[in-house]
Amino acid sequence: MQLNDADEPDNDRVGHAMRVISRNAIEAALDEGEAMAAIAAAFRALVEDRAQMIAIGHLAFEAFGGDCHVKGGHIAGDDVFVVKVASGFYGNAARGLPSSQGFVAVMNAQTGETLAILNDGGWLTDRRTALTGVLAAKAISRRGSKVLGVVGSGTQARLQAEHIRRHLQLDEVLVWARDPQKAATLGEAVSLPVLCARADMIVTTTPSTQALIDDAWVRPGTRIIAVGADAPGKQELDPALFARSTVVADLPEQCADHGESAHAVRAGIISLDRLLSLGAVLSAPPVFADDEIVIADLTGLAVQDIAITQSVWNRLKLQ
Amino acid sequence: MQLNDADEPDNDRVGHAMRVISRNAIEAALDEGEAMAAIAAAFRALVEDRAQMIAIGHLAFEAFGGDCHVKGGHIAGDDVFVVKVASGFYGNAARGLPSSQGFVAVMNAQTGETLAILNDGGWLTDRRTALTGVLAAKAISRRGSKVLGVVGSGTQARLQAEHIRRHLQLDEVLVWARDPQKAATLGEAVSLPVLCARADMIVTTTPSTQALIDDAWVRPGTRIIAVGADAPGKQELDPALFARSTVVADLPEQCADHGESAHAVRAGIISLDRLLSLGAVLSAPPVFADDEIVIADLTGLAVQDIAITQSVWNRLKLQ
Repeated sequence: MQLNDADEPDNDRVGHAMRVISRNAIEAALDEGEAMAAIAAAFRALVEDRAQMIAIGHLAFEAFGGDCHVKGGHIAGDDVFVVKVASGFYGNAARGLPSSQGFVAVMNAQTGETLAILNDGGWLTDRRTALTGVLAAKAISRRGSKVLGVVGSGTQARLQAEHIRRHLQLDEVLVWARDPQKAATLGEAVSLPVLCARADMIVTTTPSTQALIDDAWVRPGTRIIAVGADAPGKQELDPALFARSTVVADLPEQCADHGESAHAVRAGIISLDRLLSLGAVLSAPPVFADDEIVIADLTGLAVQDIAITQSVWNRLKLQ
Repeated sequence: MQLNDADEPDNDRVGHAMRVISRNAIEAALDEGEAMAAIAAAFRALVEDRAQMIAIGHLAFEAFGGDCHVKGGHIAGDDVFVVKVASGFYGNAARGLPSSQGFVAVMNAQTGETLAILNDGGWLTDRRTALTGVLAAKAISRRGSKVLGVVGSGTQARLQAEHIRRHLQLDEVLVWARDPQKAATLGEAVSLPVLCARADMIVTTTPSTQALIDDAWVRPGTRIIAVGADAPGKQELDPALFARSTVVADLPEQCADHGESAHAVRAGIISLDRLLSLGAVLSAPPVFADDEIVIADLTGLAVQDIAITQSVWNRLKLQ
């Protein structure tokens, strides 16, 4: 396409009908099993080079504590492509507005027509992140795991706790958060050393910019889903822990650049080629030793947005 | 913002109302003078480092002759920010559909709320490109100009011919296109050498991938608005022409990379620092000599989309 539409037949036709889908309708259309299968397939498509993603767009609105990310792409063979605008404006609470804002646009991949605007206000992003946490947890979990440790008390802490516990049939949830009262709403509030001493699997979900979990606290065999560190400067784990861990990355290059792994890579503790890709792990699940520490570093990719949107749209388009 | 919304207050509020604006309403809301003033201001903001733009997103759908670009950004002080999805699917004609597709999303820059989807199907992109052509034409025009030469017969050929002729009060329009019958719908159909011999100002609008206009045909004092070459490989002008021309670029780095200027830069005929920026030229209009050849290289920028959208939205939001 030429950006300027130069020398092309004129278009005076008014566009077709575009649907706007409310958040309630989106919630009703989400089938977790279908969405997880779609996300897993999308990660496999990624490693098989069948996914194209746009460069991640970023805008900052510092005066209002705001940030906007634009992601999107297409998986070969899909009948739609997707562009997502997702914002977080942290001054919104004071205005009585949700901090998460945004929408997902669904376009016909054969004609470019805009089929629908899913007016989700970040809901699909939250769910795809949680469901990807479940996929990673299943891929790296140790047999006989019973106790889930949750670090943080925000949206992802609640969603990861609920989803991972349910899908992996774990018995117990321990929670650490800066605010113990908030922690107690999600499970048994404990200190971080206690959480590490008792949990079989840990999910970290905070926007921390310094390590919260000390290498010395982590027992052999612990499995960690690291969700919080998804932008430059964010960090939840002691980089030294990576020296004795196996690392699965949603996208190795991205994790080495600005995920949890970035700190260990930058410190020379591990190299990029040590990072297994989640797509490869989902395609051919490796066998991890019972005493192996395994970290899943999840930074967030457009293929997850494409997959959950395709999954929801497959139901919505029939309505 | 963290992409994963980790450790943030939960949001169960359903979003505010988002408006969908039809193309007819968008067309009715466009005031050319206001839009041109907004576009000129946006170019000035760009050179004054008051504009932030997302990385341009690109997706290709080769099986369907399709291409999608995602652009967007924010100009400091504006009350909204903008994300545009614009596609061209050149197989659409056979389906009875317009090749141009897409929309522009308008978000509140203080809260991130999606205020409106302008369902324009590429209409705003066509207009901002034409109006930027007018701004560039005014900035570089030679006193006493009477004859406009148009290269191409597509949407931009028609729009640039109509807008430049009207705003610069030119008397005569000469047109060259591969199809002389199409050319004749826009003005007097002529050969390219004749067009160059008679035109005071030339606007080139084709998706050509090789030079159409020979250096030897271009008379001293000719002013050229180069709109067609806006992606790698596209070319309408003989690179040798740049050796004896003054060049104004909408964004020098982008033009040197994939605009009309790119061929001359790559061939070593001119260097990047020879390109004047349109924003600087609009801020402090230089005086060009009557026999100076001046080329405006227009590749298309998100600031133009932001400006025309802001301009249209200022009227729509009151309705």
